[in-house]
Amino acid sequence: MLAPIPPTSTLPAGSVGSVETQYVDLPAPVRLDCGRELPSVRVAYETYGTLSPERDNVVLVCHALSGDAHAAGVSPTSPEASTRDGFAAERRDGSAGKGLGWWDGMIGPGKAFDTDRFFVISTNVLGGCRGTTGPSSIDPATGKPYGSNFPVVTVADMVRCQRAFLDVLGIERLAAVAGGSLGGMQALEWAVLFPDQVDAVVAIATTHALHPQGVAWNAIAREAITRDPAWQGGHYYDTGRAPDAGVGVARMVGHITYLSAPALTEKFGRRLQNARDIRYTIGEPEFEVESYLRHQAGSFVRRFDANTYLYLSRALTYFDLARQHGSGSLVRALEGVSARTLLIAFSSDWLYPASASQEITDALRALSKPVEFHLIDAPYGHDCFLLEEAQQIPIVRRFLADGSAASDLEQRGLCD
Amino acid sequence: MLAPIPPTSTLPAGSVGSVETQYVDLPAPVRLDCGRELPSVRVAYETYGTLSPERDNVVLVCHALSGDAHAAGVSPTSPEASTRDGFAAERRDGSAGKGLGWWDGMIGPGKAFDTDRFFVISTNVLGGCRGTTGPSSIDPATGKPYGSNFPVVTVADMVRCQRAFLDVLGIERLAAVAGGSLGGMQALEWAVLFPDQVDAVVAIATTHALHPQGVAWNAIAREAITRDPAWQGGHYYDTGRAPDAGVGVARMVGHITYLSAPALTEKFGRRLQNARDIRYTIGEPEFEVESYLRHQAGSFVRRFDANTYLYLSRALTYFDLARQHGSGSLVRALEGVSARTLLIAFSSDWLYPASASQEITDALRALSKPVEFHLIDAPYGHDCFLLEEAQQIPIVRRFLADGSAASDLEQRGLCD
Repeated sequence: MLAPIPPTSTLPAGSVGSVETQYVDLPAPVRLDCGRELPSVRVAYETYGTLSPERDNVVLVCHALSGDAHAAGVSPTSPEASTRDGFAAERRDGSAGKGLGWWDGMIGPGKAFDTDRFFVISTNVLGGCRGTTGPSSIDPATGKPYGSNFPVVTVADMVRCQRAFLDVLGIERLAAVAGGSLGGMQALEWAVLFPDQVDAVVAIATTHALHPQGVAWNAIAREAITRDPAWQGGHYYDTGRAPDAGVGVARMVGHITYLSAPALTEKFGRRLQNARDIRYTIGEPEFEVESYLRHQAGSFVRRFDANTYLYLSRALTYFDLARQHGSGSLVRALEGVSARTLLIAFSSDWLYPASASQEITDALRALSKPVEFHLIDAPYGHDCFLLEEAQQIPIVRRFLADGSAASDLEQRGLCD
Repeated sequence: MLAPIPPTSTLPAGSVGSVETQYVDLPAPVRLDCGRELPSVRVAYETYGTLSPERDNVVLVCHALSGDAHAAGVSPTSPEASTRDGFAAERRDGSAGKGLGWWDGMIGPGKAFDTDRFFVISTNVLGGCRGTTGPSSIDPATGKPYGSNFPVVTVADMVRCQRAFLDVLGIERLAAVAGGSLGGMQALEWAVLFPDQVDAVVAIATTHALHPQGVAWNAIAREAITRDPAWQGGHYYDTGRAPDAGVGVARMVGHITYLSAPALTEKFGRRLQNARDIRYTIGEPEFEVESYLRHQAGSFVRRFDANTYLYLSRALTYFDLARQHGSGSLVRALEGVSARTLLIAFSSDWLYPASASQEITDALRALSKPVEFHLIDAPYGHDCFLLEEAQQIPIVRRFLADGSAASDLEQRGLCD
């Protein structure tokens, strides 16, 4: 029997095809951890696959700091708007080109989040700059962009906003909530805040609380932005100036923390731009890695809002399950979790090291909750969650297929 | 027999006492790797101990990026000018207070560089901002500060400048040349450029060529400075504005790369400034580590020139013994070395990892040159070379005492 001919011959096998971001206005104000309330919130989202009549096949996918609702497929209206960049963008150059979702390798027919089975939903987070209400949105009270008057949001606020959004769609339960990095924090927060509504958590390259060095890197990135005079206290939107210089530096810092030192050595070494010799220049890129950083900063500035960077960076440093929900105890914070949990970490990830996933695993095991932890040996650092699909897909597929058998399996040996 | 009473009772045992920085104007222009020439060069220096009649007991100590000529003792004229900061400054608070040299723990009677035996000389490097000619110096051709018209200097240029300076003092040979980080690069460069004039090299927490991630961190720090509008293309000296914001970010990046993640966790954890809870702020420090970073940036900006940061950062990324002297081969680059070499690296140093010292060791051993490599197990990261004196002192003392026995000892097992 011949394989069916795909609907669009230019799309690679396993693609969800052409998608467009949609928008929902929440019917009620959103109450925030900081005590303030957002009177009107719009949520940008995409969906892939088909909602079952029983509405029991929903997977919510949560993005990381620089992501957006466009997680899979090709966005024909804004082909330049892919949130893939760096190593991830380069890896894709040879396949479907630009406009591809940031987790396209994981979402689609036959992939980790199999759209033949699941109805996958991806939203832009609260505080974002890609369609969901954030600091660049208009404050209805003033008719101008919020800027730094936007309330400080937490990961829990993001999750409550997703909860309110799913209510609008008439979706009560999640078969799974999944994400990497800040997205993984959201997934864990879902399991704690709404334990009766989440069947499974897939938390990749993430943590229950960022370690102090990670807090420091985020502080430095924010300092780079707020010290840029063009930031103007956060009210730059209508001034014709934006803190592009600072955002560029912030992105460079982020980018190096997302990669491993060996990956940089393998990719760039100490190769010079000018193969013959150094040119004795202070201000211009001299090594290939310097030129790469400048390029990454430039492309990021074109697609990302400085204030959103500040707000999401702050949210992910605040995230601390033990502080928020356990009076300092991670075990106590996770006491109410009823979802099965899959944790994946990467050996070369020094920003979200495997030790944090191990701590979550230990806490859930101490509570006799079903949990799997896979440590994948891979070289690219934190960005592995965007790059190492081949190793993640079978783990996630089997975990999601195993929905009925909620057993605490010792699976770590499978892949490390 | 009673120990002699120290001359000043307020000084701790082993101190070289009160010192003042001195200055020498080189008698001839300095020719640079970039092809340009500096017509007049002043060198700031300090000395500790007594020059022997045979002039055979000279140890040249070379400083790192943020250091200066004030390596030991107390500087009474500028007590606020200590180049110790961060963990190193705090460690000293209980002893001699401010104004202490950056390597005071290593230089003095009975210390690693024993001033009862050696005449220790420390200079501020070419390109510096603490007395030696650099970008903030007056360009005699214009009567104004060089700014970014200052020629790009290399580590080899720094060493040639030190050579010319020692000629003025009538010193031909060095019993040893020593330094950590950029200072270690200078020590290695000395052994290659002037093999007949160096008896021993002590190169600590250094490398033969910075790895690509280190090149990237330095590029980011420089971008933070050059993107600050107050930098003004490098000509900010007489404008009443300086790129303090950018230098602060550069220093924050540097500071975190000088420390290890576990050291930050041990010192700060995720402790909040406000012990009760988070305050929901984007712009203000919330975690103790954030406040610490801001404090470090502020104190650095007050004592260090932005352009010097750029020039020294560039020099240490250019440094590459194999490229400069070996057509890409480290072994070939080191062929002419005749000094005995002591290498020390620290287990937690991820900016100048031990692997580089191992590569230098392997190259020297392949050439049957006398070399010792000690890997010290210590938690503070790159800054260990400023902090872990207790572990370094016996190694350096024994190595320098062992001057006559130029044997290739396998000493690594002694201390790790």
